[in-house]
Amino acid sequence: MAYQPLTEETAIALAKEIGYFSQEAAVTCSEIGDGNLNLVFHIRSGEKGIIIKQALPYAKVVGESWPLSLRRATIESNALTTFAKYVPELVPEVYYHNEELAVTVMEDLSHMTISRKGLIEGEDYPLLSQHIGTFSAKTLFYTSDFGLEAQEKRKLDGTFVNPDLCKITEDLVFTDPFGNYETNSYEPELQEAVEELWSDEALKLRAAQFKYKFLTRKEALMHGDLHTGSIFATPTETKVIDPEFATFGPIGFDLGHFLANLAMNAIARPADKREILFYHIENTWKVFAETFTTLWETAETEAYTKQTGWLPLVLEDIFADIVGFAGCEIIRRTIGLAHVADLDGIADTEAKLAAKRHALRLGRALLLARGADISIFRKEFAATQERKEVQA
Amino acid sequence: MAYQPLTEETAIALAKEIGYFSQEAAVTCSEIGDGNLNLVFHIRSGEKGIIIKQALPYAKVVGESWPLSLRRATIESNALTTFAKYVPELVPEVYYHNEELAVTVMEDLSHMTISRKGLIEGEDYPLLSQHIGTFSAKTLFYTSDFGLEAQEKRKLDGTFVNPDLCKITEDLVFTDPFGNYETNSYEPELQEAVEELWSDEALKLRAAQFKYKFLTRKEALMHGDLHTGSIFATPTETKVIDPEFATFGPIGFDLGHFLANLAMNAIARPADKREILFYHIENTWKVFAETFTTLWETAETEAYTKQTGWLPLVLEDIFADIVGFAGCEIIRRTIGLAHVADLDGIADTEAKLAAKRHALRLGRALLLARGADISIFRKEFAATQERKEVQA
Repeated sequence: MAYQPLTEETAIALAKEIGYFSQEAAVTCSEIGDGNLNLVFHIRSGEKGIIIKQALPYAKVVGESWPLSLRRATIESNALTTFAKYVPELVPEVYYHNEELAVTVMEDLSHMTISRKGLIEGEDYPLLSQHIGTFSAKTLFYTSDFGLEAQEKRKLDGTFVNPDLCKITEDLVFTDPFGNYETNSYEPELQEAVEELWSDEALKLRAAQFKYKFLTRKEALMHGDLHTGSIFATPTETKVIDPEFATFGPIGFDLGHFLANLAMNAIARPADKREILFYHIENTWKVFAETFTTLWETAETEAYTKQTGWLPLVLEDIFADIVGFAGCEIIRRTIGLAHVADLDGIADTEAKLAAKRHALRLGRALLLARGADISIFRKEFAATQERKEVQA
Repeated sequence: MAYQPLTEETAIALAKEIGYFSQEAAVTCSEIGDGNLNLVFHIRSGEKGIIIKQALPYAKVVGESWPLSLRRATIESNALTTFAKYVPELVPEVYYHNEELAVTVMEDLSHMTISRKGLIEGEDYPLLSQHIGTFSAKTLFYTSDFGLEAQEKRKLDGTFVNPDLCKITEDLVFTDPFGNYETNSYEPELQEAVEELWSDEALKLRAAQFKYKFLTRKEALMHGDLHTGSIFATPTETKVIDPEFATFGPIGFDLGHFLANLAMNAIARPADKREILFYHIENTWKVFAETFTTLWETAETEAYTKQTGWLPLVLEDIFADIVGFAGCEIIRRTIGLAHVADLDGIADTEAKLAAKRHALRLGRALLLARGADISIFRKEFAATQERKEVQA
């Protein structure tokens, strides 16, 4: 079966062929993807539903199309099934994957809401941080050298070589926002603030160092794109989706992105609605650190996990990485190619510009931070909110 | 052609079949390997000669046999041809490789001497450090994210997944020598010094951290086993051989091992013959840093190499890794499974024990060192030589 993009008709045929629906079933099908990277078909018959996701051989992210390996569909499917070994309750179930068609058939989560959308609308997801802290601690620990025999980990690493998607992160997160690259996108009113960043040599040095960590530190299987748009939520349930950027990388990368996206949502909210975001930021780290510690003590494969004094140093390094990666993510989501609806969606123009200036100052503070604890998000949020505009 | 170990007869037949010798040529063949991991045939006809190296499916390193993937022969051949792109003058030429037979046919270097043997016999190789500094700088730079596009580097990394051989390093270099493991091997007279190491929590914490660097930091294509026994030398020429441990890892690993082996040779020499070793240690780093700097400025693929202030930090990190890895190597070569002839070959028993105690103190000092410069090898050599035996 050679690759070709599915249509609603061929998607239905596939769903019946793999036996999820009988040949006679009356089904409905709608394509619900944003069409940039993937086709996403929602197929239903009565109470039963499935999602069929198919990778497209290009991305429409930079105006024209950008070729992207179809293999990312297999990476995504393999990542979901790997994560399901450790946190089956926090990822959609994969029913079927076809590498040649770049198709994955998976659990229908249409009763849930994308958490970014919900948070923007003021929804409360009281278990979000509990679930994401657990997700990250378990998936990262069990695919790291602390919780997976080194030989198995090296082999697994070899199955998640993901150069195309990593290049997107390398360019759009770490390089382009820190210099005058044509992929950047921001309001003309931000020019002065942007040039201030670009002339900040200490900041760009940190960006270089965090890019290098992303390029070289193969610590564990990251989701690779764990922002609030990659998480379905309800008040009681959380599901992490879309790990097509999955590859081995620094343990702190995923939570850096998640906390950055919570912080950007906080920036976009009225002052009296922010506390829940700081609660989630702080609780995510608390749950992560506690869960990781428990696994370190009970599920370790590495002899040196018994070494007195090592765990605190490991957690300290992970935390420092989270903070730095969060800084990069906030900056790139404000002035780089891919924005967040939390900030872009602010209706009042002056308020939006003020929010984005705040985001740039917060991102800078986090990327430059050293030796902090989790209260840094709350503290730097306040410190960078109050600061007067600085002339470049 | 299914795998089977070559004999002298089938090795000759292979050499003729690949056309290196005519079918009629009168050739001689002798097996010159140590028989532990590989068969090595030296085939000659008049002035012409070749080496045929074949991997065995086991290693005889721990008394009984230890299964090892034959794929290491392909890793070795691929590493040699990758290195040859950058330093053809410093590696043997590969004429032929057959993955299924785990056979590599390569340049005959029998006019040269293994540098460990030569150094033990008091030979002088004035260009050794110049050549090895150049070898490491070029092979590591051009396979790192500084000198190879990230997408290409991620793909290359995926072709050097080498779990079996890495496990040998993980266990025998980083874990076993730092605890009471049965693979360790040392004279009963060293028991007290060994137990002092094993009760040194700060030292074991550093060993854990350097093991973790080896496990996770995929910075560049390492040789993986760059000791003086993996280097052929003459007064004018140097050839690096045997990269079957090649995999992506920390840039400082190879030179850590090389400098450690020079230091152990210095320990084994009379005091008035040591200066050449310190010269080589210091010149290796000097040549490496200068060559790496030139490549950083002229052959970079990473935009951030233009970032003011980054190169000094990168070199500082590489240097710190070299020193720490050197410390691990000296300790494991003294009390671990695989020793060096430099120390084991000291004829006088008391002198040998004194040399090994010195090695343990030097290894410990290097593994604990922070913020040093290259004079640390000379300084700590002196400091650890003079120190009185300490009661555990």
